[in-house]
Amino acid sequence: MAFKCTLVKMDPHTRARAGLFSTPHGEVPMPAFAPVGTQATVKATSPHELRELGASLILANTYHLYLRPGADLIARLGGVHRFMAWDGPILTDSGGFQVFSLAGLRRIDDDGVTFRSHIDGSEHRLTPEKAIAIQEQLGADIVMAFDECAEPHDRAYNEAALARTHAWAERCRAAQTRHDQALFGIVQGGIFSDLRQESARFLTGLDFPGYAIGGLSVGETKAEMHAMLEATTPLLPADRPRYLMGVGSPEDLFEGVARGIDLFDCVLPTRIARNGAVLTRRGRLNLRNAQHADAPHPIEEGCACYACQHFSRAYLRHLIAAKEILGLRLTTIHNLHFMLDLMRQIRASILDGAFVAFKDEFLASYRSVPEKAVTQR
Amino acid sequence: MAFKCTLVKMDPHTRARAGLFSTPHGEVPMPAFAPVGTQATVKATSPHELRELGASLILANTYHLYLRPGADLIARLGGVHRFMAWDGPILTDSGGFQVFSLAGLRRIDDDGVTFRSHIDGSEHRLTPEKAIAIQEQLGADIVMAFDECAEPHDRAYNEAALARTHAWAERCRAAQTRHDQALFGIVQGGIFSDLRQESARFLTGLDFPGYAIGGLSVGETKAEMHAMLEATTPLLPADRPRYLMGVGSPEDLFEGVARGIDLFDCVLPTRIARNGAVLTRRGRLNLRNAQHADAPHPIEEGCACYACQHFSRAYLRHLIAAKEILGLRLTTIHNLHFMLDLMRQIRASILDGAFVAFKDEFLASYRSVPEKAVTQR
Repeated sequence: MAFKCTLVKMDPHTRARAGLFSTPHGEVPMPAFAPVGTQATVKATSPHELRELGASLILANTYHLYLRPGADLIARLGGVHRFMAWDGPILTDSGGFQVFSLAGLRRIDDDGVTFRSHIDGSEHRLTPEKAIAIQEQLGADIVMAFDECAEPHDRAYNEAALARTHAWAERCRAAQTRHDQALFGIVQGGIFSDLRQESARFLTGLDFPGYAIGGLSVGETKAEMHAMLEATTPLLPADRPRYLMGVGSPEDLFEGVARGIDLFDCVLPTRIARNGAVLTRRGRLNLRNAQHADAPHPIEEGCACYACQHFSRAYLRHLIAAKEILGLRLTTIHNLHFMLDLMRQIRASILDGAFVAFKDEFLASYRSVPEKAVTQR
Repeated sequence: MAFKCTLVKMDPHTRARAGLFSTPHGEVPMPAFAPVGTQATVKATSPHELRELGASLILANTYHLYLRPGADLIARLGGVHRFMAWDGPILTDSGGFQVFSLAGLRRIDDDGVTFRSHIDGSEHRLTPEKAIAIQEQLGADIVMAFDECAEPHDRAYNEAALARTHAWAERCRAAQTRHDQALFGIVQGGIFSDLRQESARFLTGLDFPGYAIGGLSVGETKAEMHAMLEATTPLLPADRPRYLMGVGSPEDLFEGVARGIDLFDCVLPTRIARNGAVLTRRGRLNLRNAQHADAPHPIEEGCACYACQHFSRAYLRHLIAAKEILGLRLTTIHNLHFMLDLMRQIRASILDGAFVAFKDEFLASYRSVPEKAVTQR
């Protein structure tokens, strides 16, 4: 088998794990943060830069690529790795999340979802089989089951959605024809521990090579999200990667890792960068603020990223004020470096048996943005 | 003196010259094409990329930097080299061209120009002394005299503007206090050979370390532009660089070099790139066109740029259609590589005594865009 999950170290005080996940395009050291390349490009960056930043896994979105430029085209051009010139591991989602987010533009039935394109209004249909077929055309290393993401507090809806998600997981498993792609099942169940546990048990029975936790960071509180992780990860097989979809912020990485999560993805670092917001050890700051107008120092002293090694906050603020592309390139580079380097440090701390100390130290000085857990995808 | 112009080879059949211009921040092999960094950034590129592309000289615009972020600020932060993290040679214009382009927003008198900011409408005044003072704050290696750029076909206006331009050139020379900056005089005179010659003679008498030819590529025909170069360069001292401002296209480089021009700058390669247009040996093409939708080959086979080495036209077209920043980054990289590499080949052909053959060969296969000479700044 092309995939191998090796656990290297378990933290003695939490559920944190350090490991390696091998794919046909290389190894993913875990825990890992995956930058999001929605349309087969991590916004504002080049593959060369992502490599230099030390990204090991990146995400691409099936919904977006299916609509434009089309999965057939990408397949004819050799698959998404060749298309975007990224020869490392890639994960594609199933398209479900984006389709279910198209309120008013989609109709769900037990067989699948009919929806209209946000680009041109054309009608399309996704089923479990279609989601797998598209992902096989794209050719990512890790592919996701087609699931239904429900409003997290609606018990009745979550019960109905979970039944569909489980039926669709079986159909996805059966539809898979490529064995160089690891298909992950997705645990759903809103904020209901019993539903989450039922889902984890059901999916584990299907023996997926990895498990995702979906339907979180969609409007519930951080405490609710943490409770769902605590209800779920103990039921997942220890020797398979666990992927928390659409999460998260720097503090979310610590909280997720502590609860047994191995993989994360989020547009947060790249999206806030394009608004001038940058991550530092003390929290976020916005370079648009006047206080940075004549600051000769970098975003963060000691930071090894290209932006901090060469440019002042004053220059970055100028670029942002003048709407220059280099401004958002540099804030993106910094924020991705921050997240990827933080994850490297988290992994090193687990290997050193110092995860809890590192977590406490980081969270003591990092001022979180007070917000509900909301997926930024 | 910090500046030295060394002529290495004169083409025996044309006025083409190969040489070196030494500045405090390094040597500029001539002839040279300077990418334009209007707001202290060559749009969509990083200094690291410019270095890898082999750019030797870049331009920044005094008008823009004076208004935002302000020359005082840039001076406090160590000058424009430090500000934008480009440690190679930089040239700043005087601000005159942009100010004179502000139709309806400026008033000219014999002492200077009063104008309103295009950003916030605030009133400002530029004089020869002020233009030099600002450029000394910015700290470029090559700085330009403050001149008046007139409508090229209006004889009476050109006579009046030329008188001001000459008086201002003397005042700029007198106002200069930094001797680590090479101040270039600017020949004006519209499309009138006698005025151009009068201007060349007058400015030569002021003994500038370099001479620019301004007021071209502003609406006259290519034939008129060529005639003005032929009238001017023979009167300029052979041992000083000659800079044709705001020019040009690939074919313009050949025609200018053949008429004795050493330095060029133009926004053309970066501006058209942001519209999806790319330069090839056979002419321009636009990647938005449907014919490129499934093209697996690069912009140009054999091109050594990062875009052509890694990405298909189909991928670039996808990025452009999806409004992804990487799209215009890659077209910008390709176009700058095209211009800089073309100039390297032109220089090599002069050194080899093969300039005319190379010019004929290039122009035979390059389909020019039929257009009047219009500065893209």
